[in-house]
Amino acid sequence: MIPTHMGQMTRAQYEEARSWAWEFLQKAGVPLHAPDRERIDVAGLGLGEHQQTGLQILTLVADPWVAVKLLILRPNQFVPQHRHPPSPVEDYPGKTEVFRGQYGEAYLFVPGAVGERPRGSPPEHRRRFCTVWHEVPLLPGDQYVCPPNTWHWFQAGGSGAVIWSISSKATDAEDEFADPQVVRMAPISED
Amino acid sequence: MIPTHMGQMTRAQYEEARSWAWEFLQKAGVPLHAPDRERIDVAGLGLGEHQQTGLQILTLVADPWVAVKLLILRPNQFVPQHRHPPSPVEDYPGKTEVFRGQYGEAYLFVPGAVGERPRGSPPEHRRRFCTVWHEVPLLPGDQYVCPPNTWHWFQAGGSGAVIWSISSKATDAEDEFADPQVVRMAPISED
Repeated sequence: MIPTHMGQMTRAQYEEARSWAWEFLQKAGVPLHAPDRERIDVAGLGLGEHQQTGLQILTLVADPWVAVKLLILRPNQFVPQHRHPPSPVEDYPGKTEVFRGQYGEAYLFVPGAVGERPRGSPPEHRRRFCTVWHEVPLLPGDQYVCPPNTWHWFQAGGSGAVIWSISSKATDAEDEFADPQVVRMAPISED
Repeated sequence: MIPTHMGQMTRAQYEEARSWAWEFLQKAGVPLHAPDRERIDVAGLGLGEHQQTGLQILTLVADPWVAVKLLILRPNQFVPQHRHPPSPVEDYPGKTEVFRGQYGEAYLFVPGAVGERPRGSPPEHRRRFCTVWHEVPLLPGDQYVCPPNTWHWFQAGGSGAVIWSISSKATDAEDEFADPQVVRMAPISED
């Protein structure tokens, strides 16, 4: 057996997270078809703590002009600060991303005034990479348009959340993360 | 009192259609907030038959890169054949539009093979302007990505429908309709 890099998810962990996400989605009130389950991806971000830091993503549309995803977050699951930069090769300012709350509670943080009691609590060892603290609640029906190349991070409340991410072209591999430990496209360990 | 052009909707008709759409949306399972009601528009298309030919549109996002709308259709309501052409002034191929069924039944028609028994029945006097007859069902959870500059029309089934329209930048005023009688931005008569 090849030793697992400490940040990698195992195939079993990956499949467990997909199953959890699909079950959770059944409560969220989004009409889906059974084959959509196979389009769920789990982003562990190479950190070895995917239930705490990471997310589940159901990609419904990945088109050169528009992307539609459902982001499925476990209770308190944290997505580290990142931004979607301009393309180095074409005239594209970076992904404009609409977040829209569908189910449960989540909180998005973007540049701007810091409120008195922000409801985000990043894991202690990741907190120093969160530099924007303007809170945008993403409860069902709430939405926010995040401009290109703008730092943001988010976290589910204590019961988990389902959020729409509706955007211009997604270029996930280009995402810039503030935390240098993050690997956006971390491989899965096939043990 | 200024005489009403025969194709114009009256303010009372407009408000009645908005009220109907908002009530219908309550059944559709999309989380919304009360002020969203004010963002509903009614497109009567200048035809004087808005309950039969036209639609209600709740615009949730109108951004230079992404648009999110809910299309709310009365039972059998018909939206005439149109396309979203390239921009005459910038490098934009036209709106890429994702249709996604949310509630009820609707049928989208696009170029392609004609099925045996298409479930669209445009009003008789509009039918000759429907030249594409490849049927795409838009039941809850169904979706279709309509490329830029592609003719399409759609119609609700007998119980009405709510459809997501998620797209690249919307340029509604540029829409091309096959039926020359259609006026995309018809004024309302303030009688």
